[in-house]
Amino acid sequence: MIYLDNAATTRPDPEAFDRAQAYCSDHFYNPSARYGGGFAVASAVGEARENLLAKIADPGKFELIFTSGGTESDNQAVFSCARRGNAVTTAGEHAAVERPFSALKNRGVEPRFAPLNRDGSVNAEALLSLVDEKTSLVSVIHVNNETGAVNEIADLAKRVKRKNPRCVFHSDGVQAFGKIPFRLTSEIDLYSVSAHKIGGLKGTGALIKRKELTLSPYLYGGGQESGLRSGTENVFGLLDFAYAAEKKFAALERDAARIRLLREAFWASLDQKIFMRISPENGSPYILTASASGTRGEVLSRMLWDRGVVVGTGSACSSKHRFSRVIAACGYPENVLDGVLRISFSPQTTEQEAEKAAALMNEAAREFKEKL
Amino acid sequence: MIYLDNAATTRPDPEAFDRAQAYCSDHFYNPSARYGGGFAVASAVGEARENLLAKIADPGKFELIFTSGGTESDNQAVFSCARRGNAVTTAGEHAAVERPFSALKNRGVEPRFAPLNRDGSVNAEALLSLVDEKTSLVSVIHVNNETGAVNEIADLAKRVKRKNPRCVFHSDGVQAFGKIPFRLTSEIDLYSVSAHKIGGLKGTGALIKRKELTLSPYLYGGGQESGLRSGTENVFGLLDFAYAAEKKFAALERDAARIRLLREAFWASLDQKIFMRISPENGSPYILTASASGTRGEVLSRMLWDRGVVVGTGSACSSKHRFSRVIAACGYPENVLDGVLRISFSPQTTEQEAEKAAALMNEAAREFKEKL
Repeated sequence: MIYLDNAATTRPDPEAFDRAQAYCSDHFYNPSARYGGGFAVASAVGEARENLLAKIADPGKFELIFTSGGTESDNQAVFSCARRGNAVTTAGEHAAVERPFSALKNRGVEPRFAPLNRDGSVNAEALLSLVDEKTSLVSVIHVNNETGAVNEIADLAKRVKRKNPRCVFHSDGVQAFGKIPFRLTSEIDLYSVSAHKIGGLKGTGALIKRKELTLSPYLYGGGQESGLRSGTENVFGLLDFAYAAEKKFAALERDAARIRLLREAFWASLDQKIFMRISPENGSPYILTASASGTRGEVLSRMLWDRGVVVGTGSACSSKHRFSRVIAACGYPENVLDGVLRISFSPQTTEQEAEKAAALMNEAAREFKEKL
Repeated sequence: MIYLDNAATTRPDPEAFDRAQAYCSDHFYNPSARYGGGFAVASAVGEARENLLAKIADPGKFELIFTSGGTESDNQAVFSCARRGNAVTTAGEHAAVERPFSALKNRGVEPRFAPLNRDGSVNAEALLSLVDEKTSLVSVIHVNNETGAVNEIADLAKRVKRKNPRCVFHSDGVQAFGKIPFRLTSEIDLYSVSAHKIGGLKGTGALIKRKELTLSPYLYGGGQESGLRSGTENVFGLLDFAYAAEKKFAALERDAARIRLLREAFWASLDQKIFMRISPENGSPYILTASASGTRGEVLSRMLWDRGVVVGTGSACSSKHRFSRVIAACGYPENVLDGVLRISFSPQTTEQEAEKAAALMNEAAREFKEKL
């Protein structure tokens, strides 16, 4: 199979998996246990935490809480910080931010959604105009998971703080971490990341927070993760995450440059009488979203599966609805929304695979249209 | 190492691990993906869910939500159901129930803690006297994780419902699931279980609920787990959990009978001039808690680690405090509390290991006392 749905999930890195496996055999102890084996595991967890954090932030100013994944990180950020007044986000968020924001209404906090530009990035002026002295939280996705558009969160955070310095700034960094060069700036308070989007395992993620920010605990119990997220640590998952991230970050810029070229070659190979490009050129290199207007993305995706090519139709997490809420917010009409396919690459994707997949996409779309 | 801290965590079952590994290689797809690979993974997740549920409950009446572990299951149960009036629990709960109950005060719900009997089981009459028409939740640990005492939750739930039929009954079943024979009765609304206590991996658990009970979502997002627990499923972890449980349940009664004899032989081998037994005979066969009064359990545990024997000092999750809150609630004085050791077996524990460990425990305790 040619796997081009890496924004939904990635094939776990077998090297990271093998390295982490020792923590399911020899070093299986509970990191809270007060004897040698427990201390050794706790120390490995601490090392993984430091290594991951250092990839993206100054460890003197930030700290990292391991969570069960990006969704938990996002939920903790939103519910912990949007406690009063209003909270501002974008129409381009993943469901893991959008759904918590929608639920804020029942908690007496007014959610505000800023509109998107055509490429899926947020309209910065519109976002800022929603922020006022009563805004307790602003949350902006870093890389749009459906179009790959990059929001300039460092700049946005700075401008938000200028308008309201007490407001907390969060970003869902799930599609950015390990994929585009970035380091957290002092105006960003919270940042969510996930393991399984970069060769780690499903069920592990982290919430990176500015040390000075006070969060309320999300899970109460044994006091793990500085009391903010109790429960026995997912030792295997988080070590695997750290190992996978190590490899991803070591090759980040080289991979991104190659994949950007590969993506453009892929786009050039698509029949542009059939496909319309939605992803911007300056977005994440790993995502190319296009629409074959007059077709059905979901049907094309299944046709392609049968031909050995795996592509997505948008966020796997929200695929229960006919249209993508996010692409709709970019301003496209129904016939475009119906035909959306998301091709998402990984550093393992080869030029040959890309070429073959593009040809098969053209073939499938033509076949679909002929059958009409 | 002779590993006798299985109530803290267990060595992951290598067979279950190997079986589940296919979901990190060939079948790594996102279960929400709308193509062949995603459908196959979603179907494997569904099968794991059904198999686990059938081990302990009637699938016609109950359903199972996968979570990130016992702590999350307990938190969701408490915060979802203790919404008004008061909530009743025991002084013998794991921190994953005790801490959420203590946090209820800030949410306008009065927490009530029923006292324990000497063996760590709850005083049933006292518990029932705390339940009134304003009680929204009763939570009673099934097997006390520090003493092994079994609470007769089916009977307690029936009596609680007789007093207040609208009150929700939850039990933390983490130390019972896969270890003692039990099936959920219709008066039990919620039951928490964990993978890593029965040969699964840390980071996976489940909350089993009566179908008719309405819960509020704990994580909002893509709508996984019937909308109650969003986030990409920890596919590897939950399949590994189902495989580990299959083996544990197939041999449950035979294992329990053998381990009960092994535990009694272990106790008989301990020097009873030094050790005082805290665990009851009719409790879980897997836990033997004893105290060497005048010693320090934590020091003994480290001495034993150096001799190749791993024993705990109580709940690993709450080991940051000098005394065990739970054993203290059983009514023991400080000198007893100081010397507490928890020996916890697994079906893999051999009679030879038990004999050797008991001898080394006697030796370490004598050495400690001689040094005083």
